Amino acid sequence: MSILLKTIESIKPLDKEVMEKTQARLDNLTKPPGSLGVLERIAKQIAGITGQVVPDQPRKSVILMAGDHGVVAEGVSAFPQEVTPQMILNFINGGAAINVLTKHAGAAISLVDIGVAQDLPDMSGLIKRKIAYGTKNMTQGPAMSKEEAVKALEIGIDIVSQQIDKGIGLVGMGEMGIGNTTPSAAILSVLGEIAPTEAVGRGTGVDNSGLSRKISAVEKAIAVNKPDAGDALDVLAKVGGLEIAGLAGVVLGAAAKRVPVLVDGFISAVAALVAVFMAPGAKEYLIGSHLSVEPGHNKALELMELESMLRMDMRLGEGTGAALGMMMVDASLKVLREMATFDDAGVAKE
Amino acid sequence: MSILLKTIESIKPLDKEVMEKTQARLDNLTKPPGSLGVLERIAKQIAGITGQVVPDQPRKSVILMAGDHGVVAEGVSAFPQEVTPQMILNFINGGAAINVLTKHAGAAISLVDIGVAQDLPDMSGLIKRKIAYGTKNMTQGPAMSKEEAVKALEIGIDIVSQQIDKGIGLVGMGEMGIGNTTPSAAILSVLGEIAPTEAVGRGTGVDNSGLSRKISAVEKAIAVNKPDAGDALDVLAKVGGLEIAGLAGVVLGAAAKRVPVLVDGFISAVAALVAVFMAPGAKEYLIGSHLSVEPGHNKALELMELESMLRMDMRLGEGTGAALGMMMVDASLKVLREMATFDDAGVAKE
Repeated sequence: MSILLKTIESIKPLDKEVMEKTQARLDNLTKPPGSLGVLERIAKQIAGITGQVVPDQPRKSVILMAGDHGVVAEGVSAFPQEVTPQMILNFINGGAAINVLTKHAGAAISLVDIGVAQDLPDMSGLIKRKIAYGTKNMTQGPAMSKEEAVKALEIGIDIVSQQIDKGIGLVGMGEMGIGNTTPSAAILSVLGEIAPTEAVGRGTGVDNSGLSRKISAVEKAIAVNKPDAGDALDVLAKVGGLEIAGLAGVVLGAAAKRVPVLVDGFISAVAALVAVFMAPGAKEYLIGSHLSVEPGHNKALELMELESMLRMDMRLGEGTGAALGMMMVDASLKVLREMATFDDAGVAKE
Repeated sequence: MSILLKTIESIKPLDKEVMEKTQARLDNLTKPPGSLGVLERIAKQIAGITGQVVPDQPRKSVILMAGDHGVVAEGVSAFPQEVTPQMILNFINGGAAINVLTKHAGAAISLVDIGVAQDLPDMSGLIKRKIAYGTKNMTQGPAMSKEEAVKALEIGIDIVSQQIDKGIGLVGMGEMGIGNTTPSAAILSVLGEIAPTEAVGRGTGVDNSGLSRKISAVEKAIAVNKPDAGDALDVLAKVGGLEIAGLAGVVLGAAAKRVPVLVDGFISAVAALVAVFMAPGAKEYLIGSHLSVEPGHNKALELMELESMLRMDMRLGEGTGAALGMMMVDASLKVLREMATFDDAGVAKE
């Protein structure tokens, strides 16, 4: 059996018995029941994921996948394609937003070239797993072959598995790839059965004519490739991206190994959606972080029934929302472990 | 001139020149302009508050004011009044949610008895500034005298000033007081000119009959006392609370000393609203944190034009939302200081 299928079959439901014990502890902490809202729900979810009534404080890493997109030829991005490798150097040198925010959150970064359009030098901190020099222009034909999509999914599974074997207990999704809101919108449009006009947004900041070009590109890509909405792999290959496929693999691999995954913005949410369409059980391993300005983000989260706890008006990607969310996840587990119970504290319970 | 009036007169506008320089730096960091949303706006605001283009990373403290409320005789709370002093012991012993979350955020707590209904022993970590053994039942007459309200405001000013003199650069608002959502709803109803039914919520969790009793108590308190909507001090004294007045003083004192204040939940937001009605310039020193389940919270924030960046479904108070917000404020200043510029990083700017 392929690694992909084996991984999907390994995804099991959360441990409801452990979650009930965690809920009992949460209800006995010195606060009105449920009054810490999302923090309590996350603590309970992670208990069900890890099988620990009071989970350990996890080691954290953002897996940041980078890839390029042939569809940039259609004028869909405000930035030129050479920004992808330039930003990779910026990540390596520690100057990007994700560097600052992961450092603040106490998380590592695993940076992966899974499909950048140019060769990158060997560098400490860069995992080189390039499948292709970017995807093909999806308005002319499939962005990639099914074999390439499977390969990208399996690279994501492999990388997250290695991270988990090294002790990572909380994974954040992150991406870099000039033009990648366009394939994300195409995937969302097909899997979510919504019009391209509703799935497309301004990304990093295109003007009105750029927005029109993005909508046209998505419409054309769908018309040309006729992706099968009932087959997420077909959709991913025809109108997706290498870093999107890699991140979908990260979700599957983490869920198979019972590790929670923090979703970032629009592109990450679409990658998670692909994973959930392939393996519905993966949904229970996902935690929402921020709600992006990108209109499709909310729709993708809704399809997965995920809450977004941060409203920061961000639209940067890289895993920046996931990194901020990690501080909330840490807070939720500390609340569960460190707060006194009513009995401990001698506080009346109502 | 009284300390209160002198403090109000000391509140000056933000430094717009510094803010422009900070904006220029933000726009030159390696990200699309504005793509970090709230993080960028907070960094700019704090620059205008402190007068530093790149503000120092602030030392942080939550000022947690505790007081009791005569209106609990009307059956407005799910918890008995003895929980107020019990929770103070829990704060001292480090077992409450606010202890866990301030520790997580790297912040101190300044715990103040400004009006708890019973005597508390001398304890390390408790600042004893009791004005009265709780307020009077506002459905029968004024909750407190104007002199008491001024005294509470000035205690808030004094305590925050001492904290700032000791090096605190970011203040969080926090409160504890069984029954205190009821006076908060009364203040909001009068100052915000909205019906008590819209200002009252379930607090820490009253049932439907408790909710009816809260609405009746607010209606009766307003009818009996006829607070003057044009005079925030009159409203505060007649239908307010000692910890609410103390926290309004914290806002005024911090604004006068050019230090930002993180608003917490409903009660804190109403205290901030009182401060803003007394000194409209104080508004620029406030930063919203979470949006509580309590319906009046959103209305209070809207009246001050404050954003809430956290959607955690919390309704605990104590400063828990402010503590979580501190991690976002820290993140915003780190982004401003630590990110590379386009020139530094050799990244194309569009």
